[in-house]
Amino acid sequence: MQLLEKNSTLSQTLKQRREKLAQLIETPAIFWSGIAPSRNFPANRYSFRANSHFLYFAGLPLENAAIRLEKGKLDLFMDDSSPDSALWHGELPKRDEIAAFMGADRAYPLSELPAYTAHAATIAVGDSKTYQQQCQLLNRIISPANAPQGIDLDLAKAVITLRLTHDRTALSELRQAASVSVKAHIAGMQATLKAKTEAEIRGAMEGVILSHNMQCAYNSIVTVHGEVLHNEHYGHDLHPNDLLLADVGAETENGWASDITRTWPVKGKFSSTQRDIYDLVLAAHDACIEKIRPGVEYQEIHLLACFIIAQGLIELGILKGDPTNLVEMDAHALFFPHGIGHLLGLDVHDMEDLGDLAGYERGRTRSDRFGLGYLRLNRPLHSGMLVTIEPGFYQVPAILNHRELRAKYEKVVNWSRLSEFADVRGIRIEDDVFVTEFGAEVLTASLPNKAQDIENLVSQPRD
Amino acid sequence: MQLLEKNSTLSQTLKQRREKLAQLIETPAIFWSGIAPSRNFPANRYSFRANSHFLYFAGLPLENAAIRLEKGKLDLFMDDSSPDSALWHGELPKRDEIAAFMGADRAYPLSELPAYTAHAATIAVGDSKTYQQQCQLLNRIISPANAPQGIDLDLAKAVITLRLTHDRTALSELRQAASVSVKAHIAGMQATLKAKTEAEIRGAMEGVILSHNMQCAYNSIVTVHGEVLHNEHYGHDLHPNDLLLADVGAETENGWASDITRTWPVKGKFSSTQRDIYDLVLAAHDACIEKIRPGVEYQEIHLLACFIIAQGLIELGILKGDPTNLVEMDAHALFFPHGIGHLLGLDVHDMEDLGDLAGYERGRTRSDRFGLGYLRLNRPLHSGMLVTIEPGFYQVPAILNHRELRAKYEKVVNWSRLSEFADVRGIRIEDDVFVTEFGAEVLTASLPNKAQDIENLVSQPRD
Repeated sequence: MQLLEKNSTLSQTLKQRREKLAQLIETPAIFWSGIAPSRNFPANRYSFRANSHFLYFAGLPLENAAIRLEKGKLDLFMDDSSPDSALWHGELPKRDEIAAFMGADRAYPLSELPAYTAHAATIAVGDSKTYQQQCQLLNRIISPANAPQGIDLDLAKAVITLRLTHDRTALSELRQAASVSVKAHIAGMQATLKAKTEAEIRGAMEGVILSHNMQCAYNSIVTVHGEVLHNEHYGHDLHPNDLLLADVGAETENGWASDITRTWPVKGKFSSTQRDIYDLVLAAHDACIEKIRPGVEYQEIHLLACFIIAQGLIELGILKGDPTNLVEMDAHALFFPHGIGHLLGLDVHDMEDLGDLAGYERGRTRSDRFGLGYLRLNRPLHSGMLVTIEPGFYQVPAILNHRELRAKYEKVVNWSRLSEFADVRGIRIEDDVFVTEFGAEVLTASLPNKAQDIENLVSQPRD
Repeated sequence: MQLLEKNSTLSQTLKQRREKLAQLIETPAIFWSGIAPSRNFPANRYSFRANSHFLYFAGLPLENAAIRLEKGKLDLFMDDSSPDSALWHGELPKRDEIAAFMGADRAYPLSELPAYTAHAATIAVGDSKTYQQQCQLLNRIISPANAPQGIDLDLAKAVITLRLTHDRTALSELRQAASVSVKAHIAGMQATLKAKTEAEIRGAMEGVILSHNMQCAYNSIVTVHGEVLHNEHYGHDLHPNDLLLADVGAETENGWASDITRTWPVKGKFSSTQRDIYDLVLAAHDACIEKIRPGVEYQEIHLLACFIIAQGLIELGILKGDPTNLVEMDAHALFFPHGIGHLLGLDVHDMEDLGDLAGYERGRTRSDRFGLGYLRLNRPLHSGMLVTIEPGFYQVPAILNHRELRAKYEKVVNWSRLSEFADVRGIRIEDDVFVTEFGAEVLTASLPNKAQDIENLVSQPRD
């Protein structure tokens, strides 16, 4: 079976993970992998994605399976496929083979699971069928993953402690995802001169990801309207003076994600206004990465980006005043309304199923400040963490035309100067940054981000 | 809004559809579009696919919307997006604009829907959140779509009557899906000589579909193990003597599907055994299409394919006996175990959410014969229907090594002769065939299927 051919050290890694878990929590834990949801009819299903907590401790994307962890031991619960299913799906590896590959201590059919659920903690999965099974087998109502209670909360905290930093197996997968995402972005740039629509560039990029037998870690953003932050339409034509913003990342077969954004000029050459803003966003990006090391507060990195953007916009004549004051009054958020980044791992927003439990240090909650409220990560950095750094500049009509915001910031914006930057609707530059003992390693560093290099790539289309 | 730019005749088509529905059923009908399921965490969702019955009468893939049809009138229920969401998703068209575009008679926020649900029939949607809403608002337990009851059954039958044949708007969309799928297959063939893995060919093919701003109508099958009928893994390397089977089809933005299979030699040249079987499958394919016209029973077409395959296998020395007898004893099904095809429309297996209600003429049920039980369509053909024709030949270990089957067919198979065809694991040739008044029009005819043409395409890789 293809699943079982790779990664011979998996069982050792899994053992280490569950031994670490056992040091943090004595309660037995059960994780369910879930099932693929149907699309338009039952047999036409979305591509299966196993629950990330399951993947972390099971290592393999097994559908409709459960694992039980206790004191460092691993029990696997899954059914062998029926003889009938071999006709349609081929001969799949047997439970016992999979269990051996994973290094499981015992393996049972799913029907045995009810006998092993007593006093077990869990984390609610996303699909409702499996969730109902969780509640039924544990004989209690399980709170949603973003608000776990009691032993489930203890388990979630323990899992977060582990998943916040990445071991070598994880890092190896994350590097593979980053490497394929880099190729996808280069293909996107090189497809642009010949392309007429956003969709063509998306096709070129996702085609590369699929070609490496990976999937997209999230719905791609590939748009000339980068100011629409979560734009998932690809229907626009490309015009020569447009910037194209592409936020596209691959996910390995075992679920490890990458997350990259680049912004490039459709005709291969930035206008002077586009270049000015691009260089400013890049300066913020570089300064943030420069600042990354263990012990630094991620929010400080966010605020550094805000400061640099405010300062740069003053220099460009778009903002007026003192950068520190402007950041304190959230004026930067008129143009940079989101956070500087987030955790990255098995999820593109890692562990966001748990709400802010992973992203926010214990005792901290989201700010209600316009310029801080969208920050997804607020913790001191530790060696082994993987975060994104993704400053941006956007002219979002819903913000710039917002009556109250417009009134509040009327005097600190030079609106007529701003209008000269109309060809800069949205720019973001995003890389995946691994926190090392001494600083930062950019996993996506092989993808150029300097304006000149980007222009060169776009201007050299592939045949 | 992109959604609203195309297809100016949509409102007229929708009016005709609901007037036809009103002629068949007096009960008011409500269709829900559904919501996209989450992938690994709530904000990371699968790409939204609206319920097909909703799409048929609403024409647009609106998420979390409902329509109410009564006496030819259309009411739209959906919420305008919140001002906050404009930041993330841009300015979306308003309910009233959408309603005007669709030609709806009235438009309401979703909160008004409960006032309009009395005595309404519906069809259960796939996602459980929306399904719960359906039950709650109609104040009754709605049977699953594959077993509708009472007024819901009446509604399902009426909808089937409409959707069984395609109007001009539908046909235009189906042609677009077919045309893009043809391009995807050509790209796949032309990518093969340079490719090392199944995944690379899948990437080339799906890249084309995405480039046309379409999605895949179903999970692609792109495999050198064509004998695994629903193989959704892409991890095999390509070897020069392999055949590659690609079953890949596009779906338009509004949900209309195509479904094409081609099988080609990895090195651009069939071996003589591969060529023999390929030509036989193609002969069955051509004969079936030749036979298509209104009034013909689809099962007869299936049995024609069985006969031709049996006859051809006799000529090749693989089967022994009389072809009619062999088909009657289901010997063909050793190598052609599935049906000759299915309905195609908004779903790749059109209306399969309704079980066999659409596929099987009233009063008919699935056969328990090995050689007929997998037939998804058993109706007389009518002008305006779209069906697939997809004969195949497979050496499925689960069948050929099945003890009882092996015993039953021991004497009609020349097993040693069969072993000479070991390099033919799976071949399928599938086209989309529209039933016209006078015969058949192959919507996918621009994609070559003759062995020589296929070899030429594979041997001329794109730069």
